[in-house]
Amino acid sequence: MSETEAAYDENNIFAKILRGEIPSNKIYEDDQCIAIMDVMPSADGHCLVLPKKPSRNLLDADPATLSHLIKVTQTVAKAAKKAFDADGLRISQFNEVAAGQTVMHLHIHIIPMKEGVSLRRHAGEMADPELLKTHAEKIKSQL
Amino acid sequence: MSETEAAYDENNIFAKILRGEIPSNKIYEDDQCIAIMDVMPSADGHCLVLPKKPSRNLLDADPATLSHLIKVTQTVAKAAKKAFDADGLRISQFNEVAAGQTVMHLHIHIIPMKEGVSLRRHAGEMADPELLKTHAEKIKSQL
Repeated sequence: MSETEAAYDENNIFAKILRGEIPSNKIYEDDQCIAIMDVMPSADGHCLVLPKKPSRNLLDADPATLSHLIKVTQTVAKAAKKAFDADGLRISQFNEVAAGQTVMHLHIHIIPMKEGVSLRRHAGEMADPELLKTHAEKIKSQL
Repeated sequence: MSETEAAYDENNIFAKILRGEIPSNKIYEDDQCIAIMDVMPSADGHCLVLPKKPSRNLLDADPATLSHLIKVTQTVAKAAKKAFDADGLRISQFNEVAAGQTVMHLHIHIIPMKEGVSLRRHAGEMADPELLKTHAEKIKSQL
């Protein structure tokens, strides 16, 4: 493993979403970050928090950005838990391909969990766009 | 799911570690948190960052605590990546039993990942204490 990490790619899908070039189901936005629905959800209500400031992942992120991101993650996680009447929540964040990172812009996963319900495979299948829209509204209504 | 979450249990294993009642392999400590080796590692170098301030998980944590915790997570994650020459890192944090939380004191998992190496089952088997001690030293040497 080299000391130098790969550079940030301005054409990753989240950079495009942040520039408004492709659509997303936005739950939350402030000056530093957005929260959107994951289009290939591991469970109903699976959403993502991502900073506006470009960084590949946790390793190259600005600590001040991380600080803000985790606070928003808490807020959105609480809303998602209520919205989906979840019994728990998984928070995860993957760094580099070896760890399962598929989009090379820092993002934190928020996954509502129900007792006895297994997760679907990550990045397995595209969700129905109308369903995602409804789920985004459900979470927004709890914010 | 009720609105009222379960209370913090002062007798959870991390509370005991924080009080010095049971030993741990400490990697890092400051006034607000510690980082220790996970005794049932999913991969070599699997460690945990936990606040000193009692909270059950992300849902009831003080945002200021979270802010500090994520910054320390970044620092320890970078050190763990170097120490284990990892290709990537998984960061995860489980909330409530339905999400896989086993110790009811907020903690963030840091798991170094190698290309092509699968994770061992979480909380599967106790690691050799001497090995964990060596692994803690490896990470500390990179901090």
